[in-house]
Amino acid sequence: MTGKKLQIGIIGAGRIGKVHAETLAFRLPEAEPVAIADVNRDAAKEVAKRNGIARVAADSADICSDASIDAVLICSPTDTHAELVMQAARAGKHIFCEKPIDHSLGKIDRALQEVKKAGVKFQVGFNRRFDVNFARVRAAVIQGEIGIPQLMHIVSRDPAPPPISYIKISGGIFLDMTIHDFDMARFLIGDEVESIYAAGGVRVDPEIGKAGDLDTALVVLQFKNGVIATIDNSRKAVYGYDQRVEILGSKGAIATENCYPNQAIVSTATNIQRDLPLNFFVDRYTNSFISELRAFVDAVTHDRPVAVGGIDGRIAVVMGLAARKSFEERRPVLLQEVAQSAPQLA
Amino acid sequence: MTGKKLQIGIIGAGRIGKVHAETLAFRLPEAEPVAIADVNRDAAKEVAKRNGIARVAADSADICSDASIDAVLICSPTDTHAELVMQAARAGKHIFCEKPIDHSLGKIDRALQEVKKAGVKFQVGFNRRFDVNFARVRAAVIQGEIGIPQLMHIVSRDPAPPPISYIKISGGIFLDMTIHDFDMARFLIGDEVESIYAAGGVRVDPEIGKAGDLDTALVVLQFKNGVIATIDNSRKAVYGYDQRVEILGSKGAIATENCYPNQAIVSTATNIQRDLPLNFFVDRYTNSFISELRAFVDAVTHDRPVAVGGIDGRIAVVMGLAARKSFEERRPVLLQEVAQSAPQLA
Amino acid sequence: MTGKKLQIGIIGAGRIGKVHAETLAFRLPEAEPVAIADVNRDAAKEVAKRNGIARVAADSADICSDASIDAVLICSPTDTHAELVMQAARAGKHIFCEKPIDHSLGKIDRALQEVKKAGVKFQVGFNRRFDVNFARVRAAVIQGEIGIPQLMHIVSRDPAPPPISYIKISGGIFLDMTIHDFDMARFLIGDEVESIYAAGGVRVDPEIGKAGDLDTALVVLQFKNGVIATIDNSRKAVYGYDQRVEILGSKGAIATENCYPNQAIVSTATNIQRDLPLNFFVDRYTNSFISELRAFVDAVTHDRPVAVGGIDGRIAVVMGLAARKSFEERRPVLLQEVAQSAPQLA
Amino acid sequence: MTGKKLQIGIIGAGRIGKVHAETLAFRLPEAEPVAIADVNRDAAKEVAKRNGIARVAADSADICSDASIDAVLICSPTDTHAELVMQAARAGKHIFCEKPIDHSLGKIDRALQEVKKAGVKFQVGFNRRFDVNFARVRAAVIQGEIGIPQLMHIVSRDPAPPPISYIKISGGIFLDMTIHDFDMARFLIGDEVESIYAAGGVRVDPEIGKAGDLDTALVVLQFKNGVIATIDNSRKAVYGYDQRVEILGSKGAIATENCYPNQAIVSTATNIQRDLPLNFFVDRYTNSFISELRAFVDAVTHDRPVAVGGIDGRIAVVMGLAARKSFEERRPVLLQEVAQSAPQLA
Repeated sequence: MTGKKLQIGIIGAGRIGKVHAETLAFRLPEAEPVAIADVNRDAAKEVAKRNGIARVAADSADICSDASIDAVLICSPTDTHAELVMQAARAGKHIFCEKPIDHSLGKIDRALQEVKKAGVKFQVGFNRRFDVNFARVRAAVIQGEIGIPQLMHIVSRDPAPPPISYIKISGGIFLDMTIHDFDMARFLIGDEVESIYAAGGVRVDPEIGKAGDLDTALVVLQFKNGVIATIDNSRKAVYGYDQRVEILGSKGAIATENCYPNQAIVSTATNIQRDLPLNFFVDRYTNSFISELRAFVDAVTHDRPVAVGGIDGRIAVVMGLAARKSFEERRPVLLQEVAQSAPQLA
Repeated sequence: MTGKKLQIGIIGAGRIGKVHAETLAFRLPEAEPVAIADVNRDAAKEVAKRNGIARVAADSADICSDASIDAVLICSPTDTHAELVMQAARAGKHIFCEKPIDHSLGKIDRALQEVKKAGVKFQVGFNRRFDVNFARVRAAVIQGEIGIPQLMHIVSRDPAPPPISYIKISGGIFLDMTIHDFDMARFLIGDEVESIYAAGGVRVDPEIGKAGDLDTALVVLQFKNGVIATIDNSRKAVYGYDQRVEILGSKGAIATENCYPNQAIVSTATNIQRDLPLNFFVDRYTNSFISELRAFVDAVTHDRPVAVGGIDGRIAVVMGLAARKSFEERRPVLLQEVAQSAPQLA
Repeated sequence: MTGKKLQIGIIGAGRIGKVHAETLAFRLPEAEPVAIADVNRDAAKEVAKRNGIARVAADSADICSDASIDAVLICSPTDTHAELVMQAARAGKHIFCEKPIDHSLGKIDRALQEVKKAGVKFQVGFNRRFDVNFARVRAAVIQGEIGIPQLMHIVSRDPAPPPISYIKISGGIFLDMTIHDFDMARFLIGDEVESIYAAGGVRVDPEIGKAGDLDTALVVLQFKNGVIATIDNSRKAVYGYDQRVEILGSKGAIATENCYPNQAIVSTATNIQRDLPLNFFVDRYTNSFISELRAFVDAVTHDRPVAVGGIDGRIAVVMGLAARKSFEERRPVLLQEVAQSAPQLA
Repeated sequence: MTGKKLQIGIIGAGRIGKVHAETLAFRLPEAEPVAIADVNRDAAKEVAKRNGIARVAADSADICSDASIDAVLICSPTDTHAELVMQAARAGKHIFCEKPIDHSLGKIDRALQEVKKAGVKFQVGFNRRFDVNFARVRAAVIQGEIGIPQLMHIVSRDPAPPPISYIKISGGIFLDMTIHDFDMARFLIGDEVESIYAAGGVRVDPEIGKAGDLDTALVVLQFKNGVIATIDNSRKAVYGYDQRVEILGSKGAIATENCYPNQAIVSTATNIQRDLPLNFFVDRYTNSFISELRAFVDAVTHDRPVAVGGIDGRIAVVMGLAARKSFEERRPVLLQEVAQSAPQLA
């Protein structure tokens, strides 16, 4: 494949599809977005135009049957992911799939088995692993800068809740929001979680409660290696997007601060202040979206293992299900209670 | 009592007794330490000499029977507290008692009933409430600066574990260390805890485990008003004494940083660095020890309610017992499971 | 010009030429780099290839005579700037010229008069004005956040000196390094400087002294509006690229911190540390290079005034000459002593 | 003198006299304030009462003739210092004298010669040398943490100007305010200044200008060892007392931040903020006032050299005079132009 740009088809022209299209068009010389499909054809057209994508495909089948396409990005709504993964895998396309793969472990497993059978690359869109801050924390753990990890605290708060319409189909806070933190926890510690205890409540908006979801949650993860981690989630931090992590180890600790639009400090007669942190996930994680696609393109182009595999996507969902069960039953839940049927995946 | 310094007897000339003796001698013009007793008479003599305390008493009875003494500070080992509280109360002395009052709720209740009967003032030594940082957080909550509290995270880590000999009699991490954080949690939120979930392990020193204790713990508090709080404890943070808190509320968040011996930042060819935080609790909490005694002296002198009462001392112990039970039974424990027999206290 | 991308020719394929070529190719949809020339033809070829530039031109004349080209970027060595500006102006091309325009006021004035005559746009490459931090400071001044400015302190230190060969032809620290800070000072305060006092020495490398230059300098600017500013320059700060500014005003102060590759803080048994700041000007000022070209393209496309004009380029050189004179004569020098012959420029 | 507390007489019961009286009474077990005098006898009485000082003396002569007194603190107005120093020296008392010794070099020299003749200890009240932050910077320089110093920047701004009545007799900004920074500069670098260039203006209050003084100043110090330092002074920083220093050296840099009443950070919907820094010099420098008296008491008690001698007091005044001359003549002034007659002092 050397010497030729990786030809990529994009399925889904929504918020994240746009981000990836722009990355492929302007930031990754090694890849080229060549087709895009969306049930909203106008949306696909607009993204195509903005990013010089040659073809607006009729649908995902149109993309999967295009022999010139090497790989597909699945950026459509969650409930279509598993089906599209299978369709793409059968067509022999390498796959980058947004998180979560699905809310049903059965559907995830069927999709991943199809991927395994096809022998294609499969990467899940846990972009935060590629953020420079979290990558720095992971490096500190690997290099032993802080010794053996003991306690971890992840803060992950959104500036504002999504629309209630989204909350109704999102699978709940643990599957649509905490899922990123579940993956982050495993990534940073480099080990598997044994049990989960989840507390939570509706503190931000009663409508979220009526929709059957929580908006405030605190999750405790017990890792097999003994690390105890907490995840602190809120759907609304008025000061903006709050994304931090802190690990205590036997030789020290590492903690990350939020990212800011500038480094200016203003001193007034009232207080010492700075501007609010970057508020939107696209701004906060700009470079991580580029890095994750670069990693995917590299894995495909040079036939290397992907950075975030199907099993990572599955485990994060298992954790989400365990957290929900823990919250409902008010007790710690072992992951194996939820995930007993995990299939053999490469 | 106006115009006359409050005459104070000190029982116990150990580490904390010394701190209080010096405070009374040099920092609180309104009070005067007039007698001190300790089973180690030489220790008492030395503290007396350093601080100009006129009399080294034979024992606590000697102090309690001294009609010139208005109030006593109980700074002896925990297992003597309850007995001494009763002795002092019967003698009509106002009482400042170090934490915890006792490990047994029965003994605590008997002591507090004696206090109630005697009508004397009784303050428990939760000095951290008087720390400027935590006081600032409490003020933010009270003044509504951050709106309605939703999530809280308390970090409380010691620079090094106490001797194993102490750990064997300390009552365990939840009663000797987390107890401060239990009180802090109630103080900052201004509400009562309903249930506790505790996870933990032995990660610092296996000897601590052999002594039947933990050295690393993560406690989740569910408040009646819906706040969810975590307490992150370690007996050993190599970088020093780590004492922080963070609260998310509906209108904002407040977080405190550690205290440092200086504000200097050194930039080298390797990194940007600063000196380690204040390492010893006496240095970190210097002013809080002064402020808590000032508050006690004020309460006695002007017949005002004490800032930290007997019930606060009792509840912190209930929380410690609930945390231990939760850890052992691997489930959240309601405080009422442990504290059902709580007596009526003023 | 609407609907068509601005067609740009690049003269110079060195360090800064590469930066601009990449910006035009991948970051600015409104512009297109269509030709590049360099005396080192291989360098030009490589930049052309990496950035999809269609044509490697023979020389600047080849570019200036290309009727399809709307604007040129002059990224060649300083001593060629003035000549190229005149060549491009005569050809009716809009011009973006790297700083400094020249070291000779006479040559600058002749070049700018040619620009004026041609009626083309002319922007000087003071990219730092477009940095988010300094832009935030400027906004604070304009919006009155800090009231009326009184004192300013600019820190501008390089991580390492340039090669001695460069220093010999650079025009000296005041013209090759401080020149950026001279422009920054004018930009932030929004007023003109009346006099300059410069102190300095050779503290980093005696070879720099032998080459007739300084490596450490402290410059005091007296503005007409009364602001007093200092510029603190060093050719070598071992901890990296140090670029900060601080302004005190009647209602407050604003200060910017450096930019870091990540927001992680590591606590060890030795100290609390973070990684070094971004070390290379291309990393530190990445976005400012994009923004300045966007501003240039906008100015040309929509026929608006440029953000940094020829007069700004001239004044910065006047200030550099005044600083050198001050250093040599050990006295404050009025700008009019140096710049008396300033021509009328639009 | 071992075993006996150093007996101290205080001359002056104003603002700084009160601070020292309290320090001697409550913070320094090795010393005892035994007498105090002030032209305002009621002020002296009150300070005596608050601090348990046995005797209110009639005047300075009364104190100097008291054979039981070992040392005197001169805390009266500046114009009385020199006379009182001579009186105390002749009486054989060790002397701690507030800054400045006098505004006249002639009077300073006569006073210091009397001190020399008497062979008594003489310490000048440059308390900031004892501040933990500046002491940390000095330690970094001495220990070579930052290599050889090259550039220094001192920020020293008051929260509000003193009364105009004080400004009229203060000797001007360079002698009443910058004088602290002149001493700080010499202390931190550990070398002498060769020349001074001072710029400044009236930016805060025109009344200050009418009184013949400046309220905003920028001073450049050229040290003999090549270090170039700037001092940035304002009589009014609305955000509070701003006291910082930053040194660049060949191996790194060190910078100090201001001191704050607490370490709390509040995040709101508007910004991220913290409370203003400590606003009052007594709060900011509390510990330095204790440390400087401890150092004085130690020097006297153990017959060691004082930390800040008469020559330090003299040089700071020379620098103040040179700064004024530089400002008036708009040129750098060599210290020897002003200080040529410096006498031989131990």
